[in-house]
Amino acid sequence: MNKKRGFVIGRMQPVHNGHIEVIKKTLDEVDEIVIGIGSAQLSHTLKDPFTAGERVMMLTKALNEHNVDPNKYYIIPMEDLQMNAVWVAHVKMMTPPFKKVFSGNSLVQQLFEEEGFEVVRPPLFNRMELSGTEIRKRILTGGNWEELVPNCVATVINGIKGPERIKNLSKKELSDL
Amino acid sequence: MNKKRGFVIGRMQPVHNGHIEVIKKTLDEVDEIVIGIGSAQLSHTLKDPFTAGERVMMLTKALNEHNVDPNKYYIIPMEDLQMNAVWVAHVKMMTPPFKKVFSGNSLVQQLFEEEGFEVVRPPLFNRMELSGTEIRKRILTGGNWEELVPNCVATVINGIKGPERIKNLSKKELSDL
Amino acid sequence: MNKKRGFVIGRMQPVHNGHIEVIKKTLDEVDEIVIGIGSAQLSHTLKDPFTAGERVMMLTKALNEHNVDPNKYYIIPMEDLQMNAVWVAHVKMMTPPFKKVFSGNSLVQQLFEEEGFEVVRPPLFNRMELSGTEIRKRILTGGNWEELVPNCVATVINGIKGPERIKNLSKKELSDL
Amino acid sequence: MNKKRGFVIGRMQPVHNGHIEVIKKTLDEVDEIVIGIGSAQLSHTLKDPFTAGERVMMLTKALNEHNVDPNKYYIIPMEDLQMNAVWVAHVKMMTPPFKKVFSGNSLVQQLFEEEGFEVVRPPLFNRMELSGTEIRKRILTGGNWEELVPNCVATVINGIKGPERIKNLSKKELSDL
Amino acid sequence: MNKKRGFVIGRMQPVHNGHIEVIKKTLDEVDEIVIGIGSAQLSHTLKDPFTAGERVMMLTKALNEHNVDPNKYYIIPMEDLQMNAVWVAHVKMMTPPFKKVFSGNSLVQQLFEEEGFEVVRPPLFNRMELSGTEIRKRILTGGNWEELVPNCVATVINGIKGPERIKNLSKKELSDL
Amino acid sequence: MNKKRGFVIGRMQPVHNGHIEVIKKTLDEVDEIVIGIGSAQLSHTLKDPFTAGERVMMLTKALNEHNVDPNKYYIIPMEDLQMNAVWVAHVKMMTPPFKKVFSGNSLVQQLFEEEGFEVVRPPLFNRMELSGTEIRKRILTGGNWEELVPNCVATVINGIKGPERIKNLSKKELSDL
Repeated sequence: MNKKRGFVIGRMQPVHNGHIEVIKKTLDEVDEIVIGIGSAQLSHTLKDPFTAGERVMMLTKALNEHNVDPNKYYIIPMEDLQMNAVWVAHVKMMTPPFKKVFSGNSLVQQLFEEEGFEVVRPPLFNRMELSGTEIRKRILTGGNWEELVPNCVATVINGIKGPERIKNLSKKELSDL
Repeated sequence: MNKKRGFVIGRMQPVHNGHIEVIKKTLDEVDEIVIGIGSAQLSHTLKDPFTAGERVMMLTKALNEHNVDPNKYYIIPMEDLQMNAVWVAHVKMMTPPFKKVFSGNSLVQQLFEEEGFEVVRPPLFNRMELSGTEIRKRILTGGNWEELVPNCVATVINGIKGPERIKNLSKKELSDL
Repeated sequence: MNKKRGFVIGRMQPVHNGHIEVIKKTLDEVDEIVIGIGSAQLSHTLKDPFTAGERVMMLTKALNEHNVDPNKYYIIPMEDLQMNAVWVAHVKMMTPPFKKVFSGNSLVQQLFEEEGFEVVRPPLFNRMELSGTEIRKRILTGGNWEELVPNCVATVINGIKGPERIKNLSKKELSDL
Repeated sequence: MNKKRGFVIGRMQPVHNGHIEVIKKTLDEVDEIVIGIGSAQLSHTLKDPFTAGERVMMLTKALNEHNVDPNKYYIIPMEDLQMNAVWVAHVKMMTPPFKKVFSGNSLVQQLFEEEGFEVVRPPLFNRMELSGTEIRKRILTGGNWEELVPNCVATVINGIKGPERIKNLSKKELSDL
Repeated sequence: MNKKRGFVIGRMQPVHNGHIEVIKKTLDEVDEIVIGIGSAQLSHTLKDPFTAGERVMMLTKALNEHNVDPNKYYIIPMEDLQMNAVWVAHVKMMTPPFKKVFSGNSLVQQLFEEEGFEVVRPPLFNRMELSGTEIRKRILTGGNWEELVPNCVATVINGIKGPERIKNLSKKELSDL
Repeated sequence: MNKKRGFVIGRMQPVHNGHIEVIKKTLDEVDEIVIGIGSAQLSHTLKDPFTAGERVMMLTKALNEHNVDPNKYYIIPMEDLQMNAVWVAHVKMMTPPFKKVFSGNSLVQQLFEEEGFEVVRPPLFNRMELSGTEIRKRILTGGNWEELVPNCVATVINGIKGPERIKNLSKKELSDL
């Protein structure tokens, strides 16, 4: 109970090298890390192609590939609530207790600070999102996306025919029925 | 139980000649057809002006006008779930069982194929959406929209003062309060 | 648009002879009937064993077996909203317009009367629910449930292994995990 | 901003003398009081017969009848979230900020104490619920319920035909369709 | 019960001089006014920065500053339902009964008129939204926003560090995690 | 991707020796196990006292205490959807892919079998729920509950003042406000 625990969160669409780097850096500062996978309910859109389960599998394998001690992290998929003002309470409900939040996202910073958490903002954390966008774009256009993700993540994505899925999703949403 | 049943889906905002053509063509290939009316919870927006009930009524009358045998189709309005990965399960819950899906929408194709359904993609199915947009535009700008829909659909739309509603909706959404 | 339309609603777990009798009687008084299938989101519990799609199929076949003209009814599955005070508005959204409500359920009567509908309460309508309970009990205990439902409904229920499902469901709910 | 503000909450089905007494006592200890009306989405059941709007009207009139200064209270109807662990955050989102909670309900006490609020538990607060049950029972059985509520609340309840509604609701719920 | 009551609604992000002017004008025509605060569940976005509770507090203080009699209005925060066709029923559920709607928003007009309400459309009501946008823009760019709101609203906004919040929110949404 | 993976699920209110035994037995038959924590949204009731995060922490520590290889399991908290017919799809969305389901709960068996999964029903799995009930009863009545749970689970429960929480919750629910 009295371990020092930190919290990071990302949509991880998909898990990439930036996430692994961030998680490893964070583990230099805390004993354990709680890793939230955001927007767990979303999948099969161009911006959110992968299911929560697929992202859990990618992240678990990637951390293993990078020799991160499995006793040092918790992976928690979290569905959205559509109420920013209760979002922190929802995160707390779904996770083991933590004190310190590591995020480059200004809304995450704002919400946790209003609830009295210590928030750390390493500049590199911004890159967590940027890379996701870049990877999805490369998959769509046939670029070299594999270099941006751990090997096992590329294997998972290809195994579930992720590139084919993303190409199909580039055209339509259900609201275009 | 052992009839060959097919599935088509559209938002039908509003029902138009393309829908009727598609349903008739589909009935050449299966014994019965399950017709989903998508985004049933939406209405009173410029993109989704009509309620589920209004769309059910339009479609029933239009199929009758075109002499489609009423024992050969099921009309099922379906509310959105906001989770693409469970969308097919939700469709299955709301409908009599079917084996074959007819759709020109690439997301619908993707989701049903991942669940093991046979998916047929007639090129003309793409037109299902395009016409809806065109009709709503013509209504808004005073063009000849009636030529794109069955007679009885024009009667329903005029009977509920649809053109007036659409013109009012062109300006605001509730989020603009 | 100016047809006289009536509304009846039931959970139809499962469709039985009482429902068919009520629908036929109602059609003596109105031109068309809108038939709501309530609690569409529920299934796989002892009280609500069948999915909305299964109930739509039962009802369509049963009305056909009893020679009810398919141009005279609309079948609309409806999910619950958990807000009684907006329930009538939700029903109106999902259905073609109607003026007269036929129900033996005192809450349905109360809600529609508060919204200014004409409500008719034939005593026999009470039997709509009682029979559902009785049928599920007979299925569970091996009694003669088939005599209470149209032939084609018995065929559907047996075809989807309904009795086996109900027996399994008699023990547990998901909240007992 | 620096006023001392307290919080009380009740379902107020209906507002009664106990609520008024509690609110007045609480105003002896704080400058302003935030009054939550719980389960705002419920109505038209035997346990929760009145809508949020009806309860807001009852409470406003009753506080006026008892000469409580209208600049000293805020009335906030609140819908349930079905997640106890985020309930306090939801209350905070819907209300002006407060520090002190007055409640005789042990779950309310528990939830606010876990979030670090000061909780006061006057024994008499327990009576807030008991009377609601008693009043609904008396209405149902034709007892003297008016003596338990402020005059204007009796007027509101009779004006909306509350006793008739409650008697109708005593028999059925929508899940009994 | 037989008072003449009117209804106005706005998101009030934030409360400004236009709202107060509208409320005062409306009170010339009715005895009491029901004031809905729309999209109550939203906060912490650039378009909807303030919580329902913060907006309730702003409005109460502003009406007091302008000497509006507190016995003449009801303030009701209302969460969105995402179904326009049941929106009016939801409003009615949450509010004391009213007959006349004052709105410059064409969707609000449309929805209430379809339900048979008398709708009044004073041209100036349009300004209710425009100012909100303008104020948020001025806060973001360091302009003089205080002149557009009552003094006490400026005090509340500064007291909760609103300008700092809005500047932080200008960059990210949770969907950008 | 081609590992043999199994699935077990329980509410784990709280985690106890039966869960650990089941998980270890299951790992004799598959390479990896996906462990669902059901009803993740519930907490602070007598039947569901602990939050999802607290249960994740209990389970992680307990598996560690029992030397289960952390690379062999995934822990996934899952919120309820209230639609049994899409429950399996929801589970699949939230989890890495699996083929075999281990459950003593007849509804879980039914739902997975209808979707074509292989379901194994070891008699001892029934005990998963029974013990939860027993433990909560012993906590409430001051019995020896610690003997039914791993040491570290007792530590977590005492650390978050679980017994005190359960005693408080024994009296009220929010619906008793």
